[in-house]
Amino acid sequence: MDKNCIIRIDSPDEKGLIYKITKILYENNLNIVSNGEYVDNETNHFFMRTEISGDFDNDKIYNEIKSILPENAKIKFSKPEKKRVVLLATKEHHCLGDLLIKNQYNEFNIEILAVISNYSSLKDLVDKFNIPFITISHENLEREDHEKLIIEKIKELNPEYIVLAKYMRILTPTFVSAFPEEIINIHHSFLPAFIGANPYKQAYERGVKLIGATSHFVNNDLDDGPIITQEVISINHTYNAQTMRKAGQEVEKIVLAKALKLVFEERVFLNNNKTIIL
Amino acid sequence: MDKNCIIRIDSPDEKGLIYKITKILYENNLNIVSNGEYVDNETNHFFMRTEISGDFDNDKIYNEIKSILPENAKIKFSKPEKKRVVLLATKEHHCLGDLLIKNQYNEFNIEILAVISNYSSLKDLVDKFNIPFITISHENLEREDHEKLIIEKIKELNPEYIVLAKYMRILTPTFVSAFPEEIINIHHSFLPAFIGANPYKQAYERGVKLIGATSHFVNNDLDDGPIITQEVISINHTYNAQTMRKAGQEVEKIVLAKALKLVFEERVFLNNNKTIIL
Amino acid sequence: MDKNCIIRIDSPDEKGLIYKITKILYENNLNIVSNGEYVDNETNHFFMRTEISGDFDNDKIYNEIKSILPENAKIKFSKPEKKRVVLLATKEHHCLGDLLIKNQYNEFNIEILAVISNYSSLKDLVDKFNIPFITISHENLEREDHEKLIIEKIKELNPEYIVLAKYMRILTPTFVSAFPEEIINIHHSFLPAFIGANPYKQAYERGVKLIGATSHFVNNDLDDGPIITQEVISINHTYNAQTMRKAGQEVEKIVLAKALKLVFEERVFLNNNKTIIL
Amino acid sequence: MDKNCIIRIDSPDEKGLIYKITKILYENNLNIVSNGEYVDNETNHFFMRTEISGDFDNDKIYNEIKSILPENAKIKFSKPEKKRVVLLATKEHHCLGDLLIKNQYNEFNIEILAVISNYSSLKDLVDKFNIPFITISHENLEREDHEKLIIEKIKELNPEYIVLAKYMRILTPTFVSAFPEEIINIHHSFLPAFIGANPYKQAYERGVKLIGATSHFVNNDLDDGPIITQEVISINHTYNAQTMRKAGQEVEKIVLAKALKLVFEERVFLNNNKTIIL
Repeated sequence: MDKNCIIRIDSPDEKGLIYKITKILYENNLNIVSNGEYVDNETNHFFMRTEISGDFDNDKIYNEIKSILPENAKIKFSKPEKKRVVLLATKEHHCLGDLLIKNQYNEFNIEILAVISNYSSLKDLVDKFNIPFITISHENLEREDHEKLIIEKIKELNPEYIVLAKYMRILTPTFVSAFPEEIINIHHSFLPAFIGANPYKQAYERGVKLIGATSHFVNNDLDDGPIITQEVISINHTYNAQTMRKAGQEVEKIVLAKALKLVFEERVFLNNNKTIIL
Repeated sequence: MDKNCIIRIDSPDEKGLIYKITKILYENNLNIVSNGEYVDNETNHFFMRTEISGDFDNDKIYNEIKSILPENAKIKFSKPEKKRVVLLATKEHHCLGDLLIKNQYNEFNIEILAVISNYSSLKDLVDKFNIPFITISHENLEREDHEKLIIEKIKELNPEYIVLAKYMRILTPTFVSAFPEEIINIHHSFLPAFIGANPYKQAYERGVKLIGATSHFVNNDLDDGPIITQEVISINHTYNAQTMRKAGQEVEKIVLAKALKLVFEERVFLNNNKTIIL
Repeated sequence: MDKNCIIRIDSPDEKGLIYKITKILYENNLNIVSNGEYVDNETNHFFMRTEISGDFDNDKIYNEIKSILPENAKIKFSKPEKKRVVLLATKEHHCLGDLLIKNQYNEFNIEILAVISNYSSLKDLVDKFNIPFITISHENLEREDHEKLIIEKIKELNPEYIVLAKYMRILTPTFVSAFPEEIINIHHSFLPAFIGANPYKQAYERGVKLIGATSHFVNNDLDDGPIITQEVISINHTYNAQTMRKAGQEVEKIVLAKALKLVFEERVFLNNNKTIIL
Repeated sequence: MDKNCIIRIDSPDEKGLIYKITKILYENNLNIVSNGEYVDNETNHFFMRTEISGDFDNDKIYNEIKSILPENAKIKFSKPEKKRVVLLATKEHHCLGDLLIKNQYNEFNIEILAVISNYSSLKDLVDKFNIPFITISHENLEREDHEKLIIEKIKELNPEYIVLAKYMRILTPTFVSAFPEEIINIHHSFLPAFIGANPYKQAYERGVKLIGATSHFVNNDLDDGPIITQEVISINHTYNAQTMRKAGQEVEKIVLAKALKLVFEERVFLNNNKTIIL
């Protein structure tokens, strides 16, 4: 029976890769529904995302492709099941609410395993959607001890991705390295402007005419991971830090949702500190 | 000696096209510098743009590719020479001026053969850049007779593309069919809104909050050809038709330049009344 | 005790209006927190929105201002109470969901009296937020009879504004004239492009490179009322009508929320078929 | 005989300023063509821009307004003559070319007194427009000595504004303080991101998905003066620093032209390190 599958390839570049890969697909009688590839000349690296349809045996195709690629190439076949996702939040409802509604109507192919927060104020909202809400307060805890509790809970839930939907605490390298390439954040500025705390206050004080939001993978350096999407909106002199924050939340919501859509559709590749989007 | 070349393929779709084409490139020891392809499911049509480098014989590659494609497929190898272009204008300087300056600094890989206008008011501007300026007045002439003079002049100049850089006269089907798929226009609205004359007046009367511009190939139906690029800018209630026109000219300039860059880089394919941009 | 109030004035223009109005405010010892005015030269009409603070008697200020304005001027003092709003929807959740969450967190100064729909599919969503959901099916009913039921229900609820949050039925002039200047719609195109049904299908067929949304007051002509806000997003040849619809819903959501914020903050004035936004 | 005039007021705030100013205009029988005012609550400062028409004596109106304003208020009546402007450039033609064409068609109400450059490569372009081109090479000169020559030349030309149309040398505090509030720059990033040299290289290395440009007044801190306008465009992983630079130049051109339009229309007020735009 025919099925659809997305194959992602991330490999050192070599002459003939597209030819060799499409040869396998052709000889296995598969259709290419859509195809994108990119070679980064600086890193001499090859990225490919191919959506195929046909009647095929994953393992056979996987092994044939593996056999023609350089040794350290990565190949990923997208699973048909929903991706397992854990959301972290603090007190702001706008990104979380948008994701809960989108999830309710299956706009992402995901299962939200739980929302974890260091406060309980968003419990009412999350309860409406019958998603488990777990409060892990940071009160009276050292940062490391608080994180340890969250890490434990996440490991128990075993998600594929962790989405920081306005989780307003800085993550330690320990946390980040526990979930490499799995954590996606929304930062409330057009990075690298206004790194760190209170970007809207910083933006107000600088007198910018644009504010924005950035969704990125989280790595060890604060606000410095590979950027997935960014957008800005125009503001003017009548905005203060508070009205910027309100206006900015609309962009944050949009930017995070766009980034997640790209990630969940298997379109985002990491290329050192950058993303390739196919 | 190595050279670079862009190959464009426009063909009915068949299984294995990417494989068969990249096989030829691989076996001729060519590098794929960049590659894009797209299959339109509605028309079941395949489009491909591949930039290759290597030491090769155009005719050999062309014939090998031709031999594996469906019979009515189109293949184009980009020529290394500058594209020959004729500009038509009327009285407005903004698009024309931008193109003249870009051309002066070789920002497009083109040769402007001449600027033809139905008025002489832009002569001073064009003369500064040592481009032939040809006035073909429409005064006392029937539309067809005026067009005949322009067609003759263009045929004499023999351009690859004709750019209407705010040429404010409606072209007859005779004119358009004399240069099929070669005429690019900039229309001062976000088509299909405000087709026809005075789009800014129409926009003012409708009270829109956005105005825009559209660059498109010209076909027989007025303002109805395949769209290449469009952009809009925000306006508000303080704008009248005249200030909209001034604001809009900045967008027209940008949109036309973007469209031409795409066309001259061989990125734009026609797919019935739409464009595919690779 | 000091209070804040927004005064809106909508009057035929005369020399000295700003002076005469601010004189009254000054002599009553009121602070102008913010102030905007606009004179439309075409209609010779004056619009003013002034936010004042101080200890004052509404009626006294109202009467003093009335006494110095032309006879048919309109003056409105914003009420401190929440605005009463009824939402109409059909089957799409995206605009409705966004408004429900914003309302839950008091982002608009409104009370949602009820959501009325011609289907019951959105009941689950609305129930989560403890807002009355009223299904008034159009099945087996003439358009006029169906509308009559809705009009009755709305009259009973007595809202200040009716928001069509993707209500997908055409309103008759009877309906519209029952609630003059009170109905706000979100249309899924950048009007006046793609008026009428299936704008995304129309957009796909036309091959546009931008899609958008328009929020407007509803008057008797379909999709032809005064525009409040519009936005667009870029698309490309890979979109079909269905993926345009999904992408467009994000814009619809944003545009409707922006328009409502402006209206609920008393910033939008009607000027024949246009809006003035102060 | 009736004339038009723009009055700019920049004053510590006090209750009744709008009333007192419009009273003078009313009693002198002047029409207010357009009016904008803004009070910055943080600095408690009042800004007003009023365009008036009528038959009046500048000095009389000026003195009457002065008499009712706080002592350290600033009042400026726009002069009907063209503003005198000097442009500084280095080697890039895009901003300069755009301004030269706009100036040729009187799109700004300015007179370009001269273009000064540290290289002679733009001479050909400037000569086309019959604007004096002055090369002041920095070769074999200390920064201070080179600047001294430029300062001397500018003082001799005596402009109202100095526009840095991609002048790629850092100005010393001596230069900046010689022309306070008169120097307008275009910076090729969305400040405060990528301050300093090679912003496109920085942007490439950071992997941003937006690049932009910022026009700002120049003060003593590099890239840190009050921002007038900013815009961004989307880019993706296929851009390198060089193609970003090309794409960014289109935005730089647009942003600088917008900022200059606002400044030359007397719409921009300085409020410490920010701008108020009325």
